[in-house]
Amino acid sequence: MLKVAIVMGSASDNKISDKVEDIFKEFGVEYETHVMSAHRNPIKVKKFIGNLENNGFGAVIAIAGLAAHLPGVCASLTTLPVIGVPGDGGPLNGQDALYSIVQMPKGIPVACVGIGNGANAGLLAVQILATADQSLKTKMKEYRKKFGDDVE
Amino acid sequence: MLKVAIVMGSASDNKISDKVEDIFKEFGVEYETHVMSAHRNPIKVKKFIGNLENNGFGAVIAIAGLAAHLPGVCASLTTLPVIGVPGDGGPLNGQDALYSIVQMPKGIPVACVGIGNGANAGLLAVQILATADQSLKTKMKEYRKKFGDDVE
Amino acid sequence: MLKVAIVMGSASDNKISDKVEDIFKEFGVEYETHVMSAHRNPIKVKKFIGNLENNGFGAVIAIAGLAAHLPGVCASLTTLPVIGVPGDGGPLNGQDALYSIVQMPKGIPVACVGIGNGANAGLLAVQILATADQSLKTKMKEYRKKFGDDVE
Amino acid sequence: MLKVAIVMGSASDNKISDKVEDIFKEFGVEYETHVMSAHRNPIKVKKFIGNLENNGFGAVIAIAGLAAHLPGVCASLTTLPVIGVPGDGGPLNGQDALYSIVQMPKGIPVACVGIGNGANAGLLAVQILATADQSLKTKMKEYRKKFGDDVE
Amino acid sequence: MLKVAIVMGSASDNKISDKVEDIFKEFGVEYETHVMSAHRNPIKVKKFIGNLENNGFGAVIAIAGLAAHLPGVCASLTTLPVIGVPGDGGPLNGQDALYSIVQMPKGIPVACVGIGNGANAGLLAVQILATADQSLKTKMKEYRKKFGDDVE
Amino acid sequence: MLKVAIVMGSASDNKISDKVEDIFKEFGVEYETHVMSAHRNPIKVKKFIGNLENNGFGAVIAIAGLAAHLPGVCASLTTLPVIGVPGDGGPLNGQDALYSIVQMPKGIPVACVGIGNGANAGLLAVQILATADQSLKTKMKEYRKKFGDDVE
Amino acid sequence: MLKVAIVMGSASDNKISDKVEDIFKEFGVEYETHVMSAHRNPIKVKKFIGNLENNGFGAVIAIAGLAAHLPGVCASLTTLPVIGVPGDGGPLNGQDALYSIVQMPKGIPVACVGIGNGANAGLLAVQILATADQSLKTKMKEYRKKFGDDVE
Amino acid sequence: MLKVAIVMGSASDNKISDKVEDIFKEFGVEYETHVMSAHRNPIKVKKFIGNLENNGFGAVIAIAGLAAHLPGVCASLTTLPVIGVPGDGGPLNGQDALYSIVQMPKGIPVACVGIGNGANAGLLAVQILATADQSLKTKMKEYRKKFGDDVE
Repeated sequence: MLKVAIVMGSASDNKISDKVEDIFKEFGVEYETHVMSAHRNPIKVKKFIGNLENNGFGAVIAIAGLAAHLPGVCASLTTLPVIGVPGDGGPLNGQDALYSIVQMPKGIPVACVGIGNGANAGLLAVQILATADQSLKTKMKEYRKKFGDDVE
Repeated sequence: MLKVAIVMGSASDNKISDKVEDIFKEFGVEYETHVMSAHRNPIKVKKFIGNLENNGFGAVIAIAGLAAHLPGVCASLTTLPVIGVPGDGGPLNGQDALYSIVQMPKGIPVACVGIGNGANAGLLAVQILATADQSLKTKMKEYRKKFGDDVE
Repeated sequence: MLKVAIVMGSASDNKISDKVEDIFKEFGVEYETHVMSAHRNPIKVKKFIGNLENNGFGAVIAIAGLAAHLPGVCASLTTLPVIGVPGDGGPLNGQDALYSIVQMPKGIPVACVGIGNGANAGLLAVQILATADQSLKTKMKEYRKKFGDDVE
Repeated sequence: MLKVAIVMGSASDNKISDKVEDIFKEFGVEYETHVMSAHRNPIKVKKFIGNLENNGFGAVIAIAGLAAHLPGVCASLTTLPVIGVPGDGGPLNGQDALYSIVQMPKGIPVACVGIGNGANAGLLAVQILATADQSLKTKMKEYRKKFGDDVE
Repeated sequence: MLKVAIVMGSASDNKISDKVEDIFKEFGVEYETHVMSAHRNPIKVKKFIGNLENNGFGAVIAIAGLAAHLPGVCASLTTLPVIGVPGDGGPLNGQDALYSIVQMPKGIPVACVGIGNGANAGLLAVQILATADQSLKTKMKEYRKKFGDDVE
Repeated sequence: MLKVAIVMGSASDNKISDKVEDIFKEFGVEYETHVMSAHRNPIKVKKFIGNLENNGFGAVIAIAGLAAHLPGVCASLTTLPVIGVPGDGGPLNGQDALYSIVQMPKGIPVACVGIGNGANAGLLAVQILATADQSLKTKMKEYRKKFGDDVE
Repeated sequence: MLKVAIVMGSASDNKISDKVEDIFKEFGVEYETHVMSAHRNPIKVKKFIGNLENNGFGAVIAIAGLAAHLPGVCASLTTLPVIGVPGDGGPLNGQDALYSIVQMPKGIPVACVGIGNGANAGLLAVQILATADQSLKTKMKEYRKKFGDDVE
Repeated sequence: MLKVAIVMGSASDNKISDKVEDIFKEFGVEYETHVMSAHRNPIKVKKFIGNLENNGFGAVIAIAGLAAHLPGVCASLTTLPVIGVPGDGGPLNGQDALYSIVQMPKGIPVACVGIGNGANAGLLAVQILATADQSLKTKMKEYRKKFGDDVE
C-alpha cells in the first residue's frame, strides 16, 4: 500500500498532525511525519518531497499556519496529490493560512481542507489512496456506515 | 481509465466548468458535466453521485457559489474524492462559497481549490486518478515540465 | 397547536438549542429536539424533515456551525418555514456558518437569525406559528409588553 | 388571505423589491410596497407597521442597505414575522447591511435572507402565510415540483 | 453648562459607560446614564431623546453592540450631535456593531468612535460642548498638555 | 458664525468634499477646502490645523483613503472636533480607511462617519456648530422636517 | 551602486512592476525585471535569487497575487532585504496576497508594502540602498522636498 | 555600526519590542527603545525621528496597534527605512493596525511585517543595516545556517 507523508511547518502544529495520524491508525495507512519549513529548510523539503513518489508514497499532507507556504511549495515539488491544512494559530485564527493555501495560482493545485481539520485531511488522503487500493475503499465504506446511523 | 464527474449548481457556473474541461481534454480524461442543485434536485444528485463509483468514475468536481452546499452534499453521498470549486459570483465575490466548501465538519472531507479556479480542480483530479493510472502520471510530469521552464 | 422541530448538526450545539427550548417552554409550544447531520445522516434527515408536515409540525429550527449545510438541506426537504441558527464554534467564530446559512440560492429560503441566537430563533418560530394560532399571538404580545417597559 | 407589506429604506432598492413582487404575483399573494426610512420617517414607519396586523397583513419584508436598521425597527413595532433583505449597495457590498439585519439582539428577531435575495424573501413570506392557508401550501408544493426536475 | 446623555442598549455595556463617566467626572461635565433599547423600549427612547434639547442637554452618547441600532435611532430623534460607541461583545467582536453605527445613510449622521472606546466618546462630547463653553475648552487644552509630554 | 475646515489627503477625494460643500452651501456655513497630506505636508498640516481655532474655525472635516492618517493627525493638532470621512478608493473599498480613522487610541478622538459619506460629515459639522449657534439649530430642524415626510 | 531585482509571479503583474521601474528611472537605480513563479520555476527562482548578492544586487522586489508565495520564497533564498508587493488581482482584491506576504513566520522577514503599491516598493528599495550610498540618500531627500510643498 | 531606533505607541506593546531587542542582542546591533505616540507626543516624535540620521541611526522600527499611525508618521519624518509592526491588541486582533500600517499612500513607504512579529522586524532591520556592514551580513548568513538544518 502507498504511504502518506505528513509534513508541518512547525512542531507546534502537532495537535493537527495527531488528528491525521489517528485517522491513519484507524485505517491502517502507513505514514511518516516530519517537521520541515518551506522557508527554513527548503533543501530538506525539496529532497524529501521530491523523492516521495520513488519511496512509495502516494499523497502528502502539509500543515502550516500564518503565511502558510508549505503546502504550495510541496505541490510544486511533486505530482502526488497534496492536501493542505491551514493552522489556526496566530492573531487571524487561520484566515491568513486558509488564503495562503487555497488561493494557489493556476497550475499547481493544493487540496485544502478546513482550518485545523486534521481528521478531514487524513480521510481525504485515504479516499485518494483508495483509488488504487480496493481494501482501503472497503474500509472507508465501513467507516462511513459506522459514522452515520442511517438505515435504508 | 476512471472518469470524472463535473457537477455545478447553476448553468451560470459554466465559465468555471469550461476550465476544468480544458484540462481534461488536454490530459485525455473522460468526463461528464451536469447541472444539478443540492437543494432543487436532491434526488437527482443522490442518484447520480451515489452511483458514480459503479459507473466507472473515480472523482467528482463540484462547482457552486453563495451558500455552496453542493460539494459537501456530494461528499456525503460517495466515498470517491470530491473536489470543490467556490464560484466567484454574488456580492461577496466567493468568500461565502469558500467558507461553505472548505469548512466541512469532521468526517466528510471536501478538497477545496481556489475561488473560480477550475483549472486547478481539473489538475487535482488528474493527480488523484494518476494514483491508479501510470500513463496519467507520466502525462502530468510532462505537463509540469512544459509548464515551467526550469532546466537543471 | 403545530409543533416545532429543533435539529442540530452536533450535540455540542446544545447550548443554543437550550435557548430555543427555554422560549418554547415559556410560550407553551410543543417541540422535538434531535441531533442529526446533513452529511452523516442524510437519510435520517430526509425522513424526519420530509414527514414533519404530516406529523403536525409547523416550523423547523436548524442549528449548525462551520460549513453549516443543515438548515439549507432541511429547507430543500420541506415547504415549512426553516429557521437557521449559525453556531459560533470554530476558528472563524461563526462567520463561516452565517454565510453558509444566509446566502442560500434563489428558490430555497432559510430564515437566518444571529450567530448563536437561539432565543431569537425560538421567538421567530412562535411568530410564525401565531399566523395560525390566535392564542400564541396573544402570548407574544404579552411577552413584548413585559419585555419592554414602555407605557403609552 | 393575509397580505404582505414590502417596505424599503430607499427607492433605489426597487431592484430587490421587484424580485419580491414577482414571487407574490406568481403565487397570487396580495402586497403593498412602500418606501419609508427608519430614520427619516420614523412616525410613518411606526404608523404603517404598527397597524399592519389590524389591516389584514400577515408578514413584513423590509429591504435596506448600509446600516440597515429598517428590518429591526419594523420588528420592534409588530409581532408579525419580519423578513429582512440586506441591500448590496455601497462600498462594502452589503456586508454591513447583513450584519445590521441578522445580528439583532435577543428578543426582537428578524428573519434574514441572502444579500439582495428578494426572491427568497418572497418565498419565505409565502411559506409563513401558508401556515394558515392551505391553498398557498399547495401552490408552494407545486412550485417546488416545477422548480426541481427530480422524479422519484 | 449643557449636559450629556449616555444611553446604552443593555446594562452589560456598563464597562464602556464607566469609561465615558470617568471622562465627564474629570472634566466636570454633568451627565445622565440610562439603559434603554431601540427595539425593546422605543417609546422610552423617543421620549427621552426627543426631549433632551429642551431639558438642557447638548449631546448624546449611545453605546450598543451586535446590530447596534440605538445610536442611529437616537440620531433620528434629535438634532443634537450623537456619538456612537460600538460594543465589543458577541462572536464578531464588535465588527457588526461598528458597521451598524458608522454606515448610517445620508441625512442622519452618527459620530462613531472606536470599538469599546468609551473614553474617546467622552472626550469628543467635551470637545463638542466646548464649542459653546470657553471653560471646557480651557480644560481640554490642559488635558491635552498633561496627556502628552511634549515641550515646545 | 464659526467656519469649518475641509481637508483631504488627495485631490482625488474631491467627490467626497463636493458632498460636504453642498451641505454647507445649503446651510450657509462658511468653509475652506484644502488638499494636504499628513505624510507629504506635515508642516502645512500642523500650521493650518494648529491655527484653526484662532482663525475662527469651529470644526474640521478630514477626508482620506487607504491608511487614512489625516483625520487622526488633525485631531492631535487641535482640540476642535474632528470629523473623519473614510475614502472608498483602493482595492479594499475603504475598509482600510475606516479602520485607520475610527480605531483611534484613547485620548485623541475622531468622529467617524460612513465610507465616502461626505453629506453626513457636513451635517454632523452643522450639528456641532449649532451647539453655539441658534440660527443653525433652527435651520437643521427645518432640514429634518423637509427631509422626512412625517406628520404628527 | 547596488542593483535591484524585480521579480513577479505572472506577466499580468506588469502594471505594478511599471510603477517600480518608474521610481528606479527617476532615481537612476539599475534594475532587472523578470517573470518567474515560485511554483512553476522553483529552480530558476533559486538560481536567480540565490546569486543576486554575488551579482551586485542589494535588494529584491517580489510582486505576486493570490496565494502570493514568491516574496517569501525569495526571502528564504537570500539574506538581501526582500520587499513584497501584494497584487490586487483575483476575487479577493489582494486581501489573500496581503496575508500570504505579510504574515511570514518568525525567521524569514518580508517587507510588505500596500496592495498594488509598486511606487512605494521602489521608494523603499531606494531607502534601503541609500544605507550604503550617499548620493541616493541625497536624491531621496530632494525627492521628498519636491514631493511635499512644506516650507519651514 | 548604525543604530536602530525602536519606538512604540504604548508601553503595553513591550512584548513585541522585547522580541526585537532579542534579535538585536543576538546580532550585536545597538538600539534605543522609546515609548512615544504619534498623537500624544507629536513634537517628541518629530524631534526624535527627525534627528535619527544625524545621530547615527540607520533604520526605525515602529510598533503600534489599533489605528496605528506611528509607523507612517515616522516614515514621513525621515528618509531612513521604517519598519512597521502591527500590534495584536484590541477587538480586531491587529487587522486594523495591519491596514493602517501597510496601506500607506504613494510616496511614503513603510516596510510592514506580520502582526506582532517583532522578531521579523528585528531581522529585517539587520538585513537593511547589512547593506552597509559586511560583518552584519556575515552574521546574518550564519544565523540562517543555524536557523535551518539544511545541508547541501
